[in-house]
Amino acid sequence: MLPRASIHDRLRSGSPALAAWCGLPEAAIPALLAREAFDMVVIDTQHGAVDFATAVRATALIEAAGKPAMVRIPVGDFAAASRYLDAGMSGVIAPMINTIEDARRFASFMKFPPVGERSWGPHGALALSGLQPGDYFQKGNGLSVSFAMVETREALDIIDDILAVPGIDGIFIGPSDLSIALSGGTDMNPASAMVEEALDHALARARAAGKFAAIYSATGERAADLVRKGFHMVSIASDTALLRAGAQMALKAARA
Amino acid sequence: MLPRASIHDRLRSGSPALAAWCGLPEAAIPALLAREAFDMVVIDTQHGAVDFATAVRATALIEAAGKPAMVRIPVGDFAAASRYLDAGMSGVIAPMINTIEDARRFASFMKFPPVGERSWGPHGALALSGLQPGDYFQKGNGLSVSFAMVETREALDIIDDILAVPGIDGIFIGPSDLSIALSGGTDMNPASAMVEEALDHALARARAAGKFAAIYSATGERAADLVRKGFHMVSIASDTALLRAGAQMALKAARA
Amino acid sequence: MLPRASIHDRLRSGSPALAAWCGLPEAAIPALLAREAFDMVVIDTQHGAVDFATAVRATALIEAAGKPAMVRIPVGDFAAASRYLDAGMSGVIAPMINTIEDARRFASFMKFPPVGERSWGPHGALALSGLQPGDYFQKGNGLSVSFAMVETREALDIIDDILAVPGIDGIFIGPSDLSIALSGGTDMNPASAMVEEALDHALARARAAGKFAAIYSATGERAADLVRKGFHMVSIASDTALLRAGAQMALKAARA
Amino acid sequence: MLPRASIHDRLRSGSPALAAWCGLPEAAIPALLAREAFDMVVIDTQHGAVDFATAVRATALIEAAGKPAMVRIPVGDFAAASRYLDAGMSGVIAPMINTIEDARRFASFMKFPPVGERSWGPHGALALSGLQPGDYFQKGNGLSVSFAMVETREALDIIDDILAVPGIDGIFIGPSDLSIALSGGTDMNPASAMVEEALDHALARARAAGKFAAIYSATGERAADLVRKGFHMVSIASDTALLRAGAQMALKAARA
Amino acid sequence: MLPRASIHDRLRSGSPALAAWCGLPEAAIPALLAREAFDMVVIDTQHGAVDFATAVRATALIEAAGKPAMVRIPVGDFAAASRYLDAGMSGVIAPMINTIEDARRFASFMKFPPVGERSWGPHGALALSGLQPGDYFQKGNGLSVSFAMVETREALDIIDDILAVPGIDGIFIGPSDLSIALSGGTDMNPASAMVEEALDHALARARAAGKFAAIYSATGERAADLVRKGFHMVSIASDTALLRAGAQMALKAARA
Amino acid sequence: MLPRASIHDRLRSGSPALAAWCGLPEAAIPALLAREAFDMVVIDTQHGAVDFATAVRATALIEAAGKPAMVRIPVGDFAAASRYLDAGMSGVIAPMINTIEDARRFASFMKFPPVGERSWGPHGALALSGLQPGDYFQKGNGLSVSFAMVETREALDIIDDILAVPGIDGIFIGPSDLSIALSGGTDMNPASAMVEEALDHALARARAAGKFAAIYSATGERAADLVRKGFHMVSIASDTALLRAGAQMALKAARA
Ligand SMILES: [Mg+2]
Ligand SMILES: [Mg+2]
Ligand SMILES: [Mg+2]
Ligand SMILES: [Mg+2]
Ligand SMILES: [Mg+2]
Ligand SMILES: [Mg+2]
Repeated sequence: MLPRASIHDRLRSGSPALAAWCGLPEAAIPALLAREAFDMVVIDTQHGAVDFATAVRATALIEAAGKPAMVRIPVGDFAAASRYLDAGMSGVIAPMINTIEDARRFASFMKFPPVGERSWGPHGALALSGLQPGDYFQKGNGLSVSFAMVETREALDIIDDILAVPGIDGIFIGPSDLSIALSGGTDMNPASAMVEEALDHALARARAAGKFAAIYSATGERAADLVRKGFHMVSIASDTALLRAGAQMALKAARA
Repeated sequence: MLPRASIHDRLRSGSPALAAWCGLPEAAIPALLAREAFDMVVIDTQHGAVDFATAVRATALIEAAGKPAMVRIPVGDFAAASRYLDAGMSGVIAPMINTIEDARRFASFMKFPPVGERSWGPHGALALSGLQPGDYFQKGNGLSVSFAMVETREALDIIDDILAVPGIDGIFIGPSDLSIALSGGTDMNPASAMVEEALDHALARARAAGKFAAIYSATGERAADLVRKGFHMVSIASDTALLRAGAQMALKAARA
Repeated sequence: MLPRASIHDRLRSGSPALAAWCGLPEAAIPALLAREAFDMVVIDTQHGAVDFATAVRATALIEAAGKPAMVRIPVGDFAAASRYLDAGMSGVIAPMINTIEDARRFASFMKFPPVGERSWGPHGALALSGLQPGDYFQKGNGLSVSFAMVETREALDIIDDILAVPGIDGIFIGPSDLSIALSGGTDMNPASAMVEEALDHALARARAAGKFAAIYSATGERAADLVRKGFHMVSIASDTALLRAGAQMALKAARA
Repeated sequence: MLPRASIHDRLRSGSPALAAWCGLPEAAIPALLAREAFDMVVIDTQHGAVDFATAVRATALIEAAGKPAMVRIPVGDFAAASRYLDAGMSGVIAPMINTIEDARRFASFMKFPPVGERSWGPHGALALSGLQPGDYFQKGNGLSVSFAMVETREALDIIDDILAVPGIDGIFIGPSDLSIALSGGTDMNPASAMVEEALDHALARARAAGKFAAIYSATGERAADLVRKGFHMVSIASDTALLRAGAQMALKAARA
Repeated sequence: MLPRASIHDRLRSGSPALAAWCGLPEAAIPALLAREAFDMVVIDTQHGAVDFATAVRATALIEAAGKPAMVRIPVGDFAAASRYLDAGMSGVIAPMINTIEDARRFASFMKFPPVGERSWGPHGALALSGLQPGDYFQKGNGLSVSFAMVETREALDIIDDILAVPGIDGIFIGPSDLSIALSGGTDMNPASAMVEEALDHALARARAAGKFAAIYSATGERAADLVRKGFHMVSIASDTALLRAGAQMALKAARA
Repeated sequence: MLPRASIHDRLRSGSPALAAWCGLPEAAIPALLAREAFDMVVIDTQHGAVDFATAVRATALIEAAGKPAMVRIPVGDFAAASRYLDAGMSGVIAPMINTIEDARRFASFMKFPPVGERSWGPHGALALSGLQPGDYFQKGNGLSVSFAMVETREALDIIDDILAVPGIDGIFIGPSDLSIALSGGTDMNPASAMVEEALDHALARARAAGKFAAIYSATGERAADLVRKGFHMVSIASDTALLRAGAQMALKAARA
């Protein structure tokens, strides 16, 4: 196996990355999507039904297709970030990073000293990268990306401070939660004008800070818009949504 | 839970049944497809990656959506037919039924005496149907369907005899294997004229025998044709194919 | 699938709810108990051997029997509460809620804004409830119950404050831990007089606050007592205990 | 770990063995029942929902409790008999042994040459028994029992011939299937007079042949009767039935 | 992913292939061994504890390391051969091929018409090979190897006939069973002179027929001997044996 | 099953304990290593790929070999410590105990009141120990050991304070992380002089406090050194490392 291309290089390439998004509890699904024209695959363990064992299994299969594997961890479970890096994941998305302290704790589990306090033990990552331990220790912090989710008013208020935390490589915007937050809990509408304004602002601040900006989109059409805005990475729908869309399209044709 | 509607009644209703087809090894997928507008869901353990444990788990989830669960067994593994009926499946598709003896053995595992020799022990089926043991024994043979796959020249040659075997409720046509067989192993083309002629013939013979005719189709469009021909049940594509179609559609929109 | 009856309505019906309690790591067991005359089924991930994947699988199977699925989370793992609600659980029991801060954090993961900070992503819950996203967002906080476990002296001392926390729907009493706490760690006796007095007090305070009071019982006989006291929900024994009781009864008859 | 006591010695001890019967797909359940006062534990892979992986896992756990692990294989899947012996099972029950040829094929997979044709590879059995390969090869045929199920008219007619097959250690009577067979498919009643007569006859013939006679019973009370008749082994109910009985007993007490 | 190199070409390369041998039920183990200097990896489902789901998972992981995945099926379960080819396996070893009929039935499940009767449905194989269906149909028979195990006196007697069966690509010698057979069931000694003579003869016959000869060895040292004899493929020990050897070596050093 | 020998007694016996270390996600592996000459087996859920369900399964299998089962939990996931004790584990290793507060929280989840706040519910531990609930409550704190990992400069600075925390039974040194910390993040070298000095110091402080000192070693040779230094427990390599060593040794012999 060749050493994996750096996910940092991929995200800095100028060509926005499109990510598959997986919440179903079976590694064959991200493996299958990794063979489609997605640039990377995210396993969602915050809202998805995927457990640790399945996410670890998926890692090797996604990497086998030559794509970086990423994971969204549950709120505040930063120890899981380290575990997934150890298994060979190339990126971690941490939801609800609402304080500087949240961002610092997340970074501390993502990066080896002196940047953070990630503990040594990358067994899966060594196997998948083919690197020797000493090499991996030297290069490890640059082999994976940490995305802090910005999805509340609190996070927007301190976005520059979050972006300035060493070890935070970028932000990932959650439009649905953002719409709930910005509407004071009265509305769930990821396409609202308030959300649009907020995500433009967040994107600009990330670019100003020289860090990555990523975002979730519910459809391919919305993803095209977000790509045009200049996001480095845009995730699209979810395995469940894609499967349902495929089924509905086929059923419509069958009943035509 | 209400006693399940008879799958026989559903297939005799005059409205052709559209079936989802699942080969990925996770019960959440047939569960999800069962909530779409399919009429039934087939788990493929011949060519799919699904193991026994997953197929059993899927049974309860498909039935929970009010749809009959069916399974395709591996070639010649008729004991599995009984095991899936015990678990609560409503139908079994047996591939490569090429002799009368194949058909008789398949039927013997599908039906209680005196029709066949199915052994008593329907634990899952009792739980899912809500029937008492005595009731289930009396009604069991009518609660599920046995489909003999017709997909070789040998099978076509004796199709009337297969259809006449007591306990065989219908045929299920496999167009890909049929195309290979009819071309003498030179071509794999389920849309060939030879296949078309053969399936029309098989459908006519099944209807003449008062039994069911079912068939696999690779796309919704092809399913529409087969429905119009008068098949009682048409399966469409597969979970993998639907997921890939959904992904490709979304990616196309994202890159537009 | 019909929209599920509200678990709030069920608990307010005046008829006390009896809950099965499951700690064995296989979803077929809660599925089986859901078909018995229990009113709801609790999956115990604090003291039981059940992992996340199995608890999620159980959710759909319990709901398929028309019963609400509930879960007890590990101490302090409030992010899991959100994940189980996303999967379609109707209630969460959080152990060792000993401070107002504990109660507030638990509630924040159980309820959408403005009550709490539950993040949006109820994929399983949408599938099981049949609700559209907008509907689920509006009704979600009322579709599930949050039970704070009262099982220490600290918790008893601030029970009114815990009950007053917005988003806390009720208390769940843990008699064994309570007996350990009240005896200063000298005794494990859930039937002690101190426990009895404490649970009467806690029940009265919950009723005064207009919230639910629930409790664990080791046997059916004890459950009958607790039902008579007026608890809204009483859990009974555990899957392991019921299986052992069934086995011992059968063996006694066999050796008679 | 001590070398396991021979199951042959246990069955010849004069004290009838009571067996637990497991069809739920989780190894913790047979492990739990093995710690109750059963003498052995049977995993049912004919009518139960247990897959190969789970049955293998159960083997080590049952043996850890010092009890022999047994399995019922699917109809005709004699290769599975060898696989379970390799995993360390102490006995195999083969359903529907209706011809001499069935009995011979079953025995051939159960016993090493020259008695049968069992292939070498007892990895789990070596680990669990602590024996060296040479020892296991010499003693292996005596370390496990093969039970041929007698549950049809055909089997009854040739019972002496079945019992005479080298490598068949005994018969196991299936009263439900026997009742269906003896009634010509009109009745499922394991307590019928015809069944009673048949099982008395079968027991007498097994004893005359110096081989074991075992039988399934649905309840502890029925097991007591069968023990008194002189069966060497009697299985009782099933994990599902015991769990339901425990649940119904507890619910009755709770609602008293 | 690149199209896989043909396993036929690899075996014909003149450099003997060393195969890892896996019987533990976890796909991470063959994945790990595939990254060591083995040339291919065999999953043993005859004597090992591996189930279908785990073997399928292992397939993708072994192929991801650029090595062919092979499987040994249970005795007579030829339908499994097709299922593993569909999953993407590159070779199948069938134990106890003792008659021409055994060899013909095995070949019929390994090769598409007109050579055999393999049914169409290579979903995993298409994904792993990257081939289009039409291409895979044309090339499929050459993309995988069928090894008939020669391990009895009957098989030796007809070895030329077995080797002449179209669709049989080679033989795989099982020295332990062969030693039992040749000694009339009195001895289990894979290093006996009788076995040595038999394997030399078998190797010569395979070479004379222009087909492959493969064999199992219990140690690396024995493998070196067999390689020198000219076998095309030699498997070494097993995952269990390698792990135990590693443990014993480390413990010896620790206690030195 | 006999009551398990106390792990405290084993560690105080004067004979240093050698522990196997497992990170592969399958319970059969620790079961296998438990039958080798290790004194105990550790499941690593911090850096390993093992999930909760697999670790629980492993517990019973390790104990079945008469060896204590231990686990390393993820950083800060102290609730998991209680869950593993409930499942029957005999010891827990908590990584990155860097403050007194860390040590106190860890101890609180490890010990029943009045020492800590462990909640009652030891279902697996009762089953595996054979103790009655009252007995287990009285003896429970002495039946398991809590190891606080010392692997940072902060921890070394307060090592006496950590050792003085009631409920902390010993320290476990992580040489790799220690080398990173002591080098200010510039070097990963568990054999550095700085690490050597630090571990001698830590060992001396543990002995002075009358508590246990344990440590990880990458090889058997290094373990011999550490045993000579007087550590109570030394873990050796990992399942992955042992398997790779076994494979490389066999391959070397095969290619000799
Ligand atoms: Mg969000
Ligand atoms: Mg076909
Ligand atoms: Mg408690
Ligand atoms: Mg029967
Ligand atoms: Mg062999
Ligand atoms: Mg460390």
